[in-house]
Amino acid sequence: MKELNQHIASAFDRDLEGIQAKIMKMGGLAEAAIVNAAKSLETRDEELANQVRTGDAAIDALEESLNEEAARVIALRAPTASDLRIVLSVMRMSANLERIGDLSKNMAKRTTVLVQMQPIGGTTQSLRRMARDVELMLKDALDAYIQRDEALALDVIERDRDVDQMYNTLFREFLTFMLEDPRNITACMHLHFIAKNIERMGDHVTSIAEQVVFLTSGRKPDDIRIKDDRTSTDPRLSMEGLDGDEDSED
Amino acid sequence: MKELNQHIASAFDRDLEGIQAKIMKMGGLAEAAIVNAAKSLETRDEELANQVRTGDAAIDALEESLNEEAARVIALRAPTASDLRIVLSVMRMSANLERIGDLSKNMAKRTTVLVQMQPIGGTTQSLRRMARDVELMLKDALDAYIQRDEALALDVIERDRDVDQMYNTLFREFLTFMLEDPRNITACMHLHFIAKNIERMGDHVTSIAEQVVFLTSGRKPDDIRIKDDRTSTDPRLSMEGLDGDEDSED
Repeated sequence: MKELNQHIASAFDRDLEGIQAKIMKMGGLAEAAIVNAAKSLETRDEELANQVRTGDAAIDALEESLNEEAARVIALRAPTASDLRIVLSVMRMSANLERIGDLSKNMAKRTTVLVQMQPIGGTTQSLRRMARDVELMLKDALDAYIQRDEALALDVIERDRDVDQMYNTLFREFLTFMLEDPRNITACMHLHFIAKNIERMGDHVTSIAEQVVFLTSGRKPDDIRIKDDRTSTDPRLSMEGLDGDEDSED
Repeated sequence: MKELNQHIASAFDRDLEGIQAKIMKMGGLAEAAIVNAAKSLETRDEELANQVRTGDAAIDALEESLNEEAARVIALRAPTASDLRIVLSVMRMSANLERIGDLSKNMAKRTTVLVQMQPIGGTTQSLRRMARDVELMLKDALDAYIQRDEALALDVIERDRDVDQMYNTLFREFLTFMLEDPRNITACMHLHFIAKNIERMGDHVTSIAEQVVFLTSGRKPDDIRIKDDRTSTDPRLSMEGLDGDEDSED
């Protein structure tokens, strides 16, 4: 009986390895999508932007195949509660990666529109820096998952604050450019959405890191996350109209 | 053996009923959140906006308890492939409802900022109409789930186009108000995000309806959805800067 259990356990482990390989592949594609979307925006490279747009289908296909695989494993192996938790976490992570792919694709779409307009100051460089930070966070979050490294996952969660801060700074910049010259408004609206997209990618990466923390220590997001959203309730900032966009939807 | 199977099946059914009751409760709270967020914006009712903000915790708590329940059922009952598909669908639906709650909360947050500013034309009425449409879509999507009514689910998916259209119209209106008077920019940025939030709620409702179609006929979103996004690639519209925001992140 013990041998049978071991056999079942190792079959599950093999299945899990297959699923994890898919997550890593998705992660690699998502990282590339973030980097290339930001690069195409800064260098006004329409061809690269188009690659990001068409490349998203591969991420979507991986998510679908991963979900099917995960459902098959659950049905076939009837995993224990803790093994089941791993499979469900991986499914959530794949949903986060799929969303990151969508957001990169949306950035690339806006880039193809923006290349036809006047550049707005140095904002595309700032956006690229912000995107690079998120990409590095994603890389670390996936490493943290594979190595079950809680400290690294917590570090990723911490770094998301910097991304939020960069977003706030950019938001103020776009407002200034719009007030300066109304002809900047359309481009700024697109750039603002791109900044918001990158900020949301950071939230998805944070969610992946939170899954890692949950898997390693059982701690839930509420126990970890100390959201500092004073700016959205501070009336002075509210009156200045510089708030309300730094808050995530949480 | 047959009796044993029947016993197992009915235990699963009982569990599923419990999970479904939770989804319906979540759905009811999400509907109320949409309606009240839009109402508080139009009537400038800060107290109601605060209720929406604090009420979101109940939706989050239901999602968590639903996910735990679902994981418990999968671990305990080892459901068949088709039963497993139902449980996984419900988990996805609960994630959609949780996001709708978050987006409503974000709307309410922005409302508490907007009540301190000059109203922008009749845009809050338009936003409330848009929110009402999404709320009715959600009601129908949940009815379609309970009754396994594919036709109703397809109708919901179809109606999301109208919501996208309303968003496009509002986007143009906000641009006009900003160009007209730069002092409108801050309020319009908030209102624009609110419009985008409602449009994204529509996407989440569509995703719920797609789950229903998948459960009833096995058809996947790609087989159903015919996205009409000509406006984002039509160069004339692009040059006018009136595009790029009507596209979802798909």
